[in-house]
Amino acid sequence: MYQNIPSLSDIKRAHQRIEKYIVRTPIMQSSSINKIFGADLYLKCENFQKVGAFKMRGAANVIMSYRPEDRANGFATHSSGNHAQAVALASKVAGNKAYIVMPNNAPEVKKKAVIGYGAEVTFCEPNEQARAAACNKIIEETGAIFVHPFNDSRIIAGQATAAKEFIEEENDLDYIITPVGGGGLAAGTALVTSYVSPNTKVILGEPEKVNDTYQSFKSGKLTPVGTEKSIADGLLVSVGSLNFEIIKKHVEDVVTVSETEIISAMRLIWERMKIIIEPSSAVAIATVLKQKDQLAGKKVGIIITGGNVDLGNLPF
Amino acid sequence: MYQNIPSLSDIKRAHQRIEKYIVRTPIMQSSSINKIFGADLYLKCENFQKVGAFKMRGAANVIMSYRPEDRANGFATHSSGNHAQAVALASKVAGNKAYIVMPNNAPEVKKKAVIGYGAEVTFCEPNEQARAAACNKIIEETGAIFVHPFNDSRIIAGQATAAKEFIEEENDLDYIITPVGGGGLAAGTALVTSYVSPNTKVILGEPEKVNDTYQSFKSGKLTPVGTEKSIADGLLVSVGSLNFEIIKKHVEDVVTVSETEIISAMRLIWERMKIIIEPSSAVAIATVLKQKDQLAGKKVGIIITGGNVDLGNLPF
Repeated sequence: MYQNIPSLSDIKRAHQRIEKYIVRTPIMQSSSINKIFGADLYLKCENFQKVGAFKMRGAANVIMSYRPEDRANGFATHSSGNHAQAVALASKVAGNKAYIVMPNNAPEVKKKAVIGYGAEVTFCEPNEQARAAACNKIIEETGAIFVHPFNDSRIIAGQATAAKEFIEEENDLDYIITPVGGGGLAAGTALVTSYVSPNTKVILGEPEKVNDTYQSFKSGKLTPVGTEKSIADGLLVSVGSLNFEIIKKHVEDVVTVSETEIISAMRLIWERMKIIIEPSSAVAIATVLKQKDQLAGKKVGIIITGGNVDLGNLPF
Repeated sequence: MYQNIPSLSDIKRAHQRIEKYIVRTPIMQSSSINKIFGADLYLKCENFQKVGAFKMRGAANVIMSYRPEDRANGFATHSSGNHAQAVALASKVAGNKAYIVMPNNAPEVKKKAVIGYGAEVTFCEPNEQARAAACNKIIEETGAIFVHPFNDSRIIAGQATAAKEFIEEENDLDYIITPVGGGGLAAGTALVTSYVSPNTKVILGEPEKVNDTYQSFKSGKLTPVGTEKSIADGLLVSVGSLNFEIIKKHVEDVVTVSETEIISAMRLIWERMKIIIEPSSAVAIATVLKQKDQLAGKKVGIIITGGNVDLGNLPF
């Protein structure tokens, strides 16, 4: 269910539905960063979004799409972090209970935040099977509605609203760059861009160590990866089927970056722009650096996905 | 010389003079921070200023106030960091040479930045005597013009433009909080506030360990401190005489905060607002936390002085 490809109307309706629960995040520029990159870069700062990440958009769209009487049993999900926070906060705002399954190795700051939003948290082993099993058990017991983190039309439509705002304010972008994990943001961005700014090319960045979208994109066939590790803790999952269907059709290219490239991109933005971006966002920055020749002199939009970083455990 | 108290016209002229060399920095808010503080907080983000700190305002005002033929020999200063960067960049923009004396223990990121702006750097022992001696020697040899970091009417008028912008955008602030080191920003803020928003009270925050302004303010008599250490590396100097004269007259109170309070305030803002603020800015945040009862429910403006932090040497 909810596996249709969202139309432009679906995305516009999502935007209206979530508008009052999200921040219309600012777009930032830096002359010193532009000099280093040799391009005209625009950063859409979803690190300033509610819960510190774009995930609030999709979660709010799913949750607010139910009538109050249909969501009385609350919502459940499993997530390594930002989606968990988003479901927790959106449920709270909706007046519903949230049940969150988190891997026991999730960053402290994300655990604390979810608990702070009043969600009921269950910890489990850090693998997709354990997460899904724990979540299914909760759903059976409570009747809560499952909110998938990415493989859902309504999530994709919600995440698409970030790029929609971006294009409304900067309407002649040559490129938009986002990272790709499960593909909610990536697919949403590619889709809405194809509708409203078809001359803008979308490029996805992915950690070399979790390169399933890269492999799938090059082979044309969905190719999940195993349980790899990357500092980009938001991107450890494999791309969803609906997400890949959209990505395959509307994305220009998928580029992979190393762990070292991710860390140094993250540090560069912290130092030069004085904003905190999480490693998943740094994947997009590292992608722009890697494609420097292709992007030289271009107007490039980058979606900064979030800013939730465990300050007690930094890579520098 | 340049020891007059700036008039409102001086400050307005300073603003016109520097306008095209500085960023009109954004004012940020955070609902989660407001909840924690129990007040309506507005952060004027000079961490997004050129050179990453408000110091660009004062330096640009001094340097651009000379005719090109009068500044052919360039400018010189001694500074632990942000003022050094500001004089380096403002001189570069003016087409002049900059000679900067820095203590050899200045943060790496600040050293690199000064060199990056093309300044000629001389390192010296980290005390005020050594700094002044090295700087005087350079001035004798080159004929460069000395740019004092704070005890100068033109610096005070330049730094005052941050609060001027703040009040233009948020005209009913109950309080403005800034940290105080040499007092350029503190005096400028108190002065312009007294001119254009006399009902707004100005409170200064200072590290307990370098509490000369606190002592001077309480005794009414300029009381310099020795060479104390604080993590707030921008606030290690004693308040200037002209600065203190203004502070004494126009400041409501001076509050001191501990090193632990500074570090935890810094971490709080990084975590919740996803912006990088340096320890000197965290002094202002810690001051607001300390005065929580006094500020409860009030509209409080905070000048975030800068974001230049050595990421390789964080206190958490």
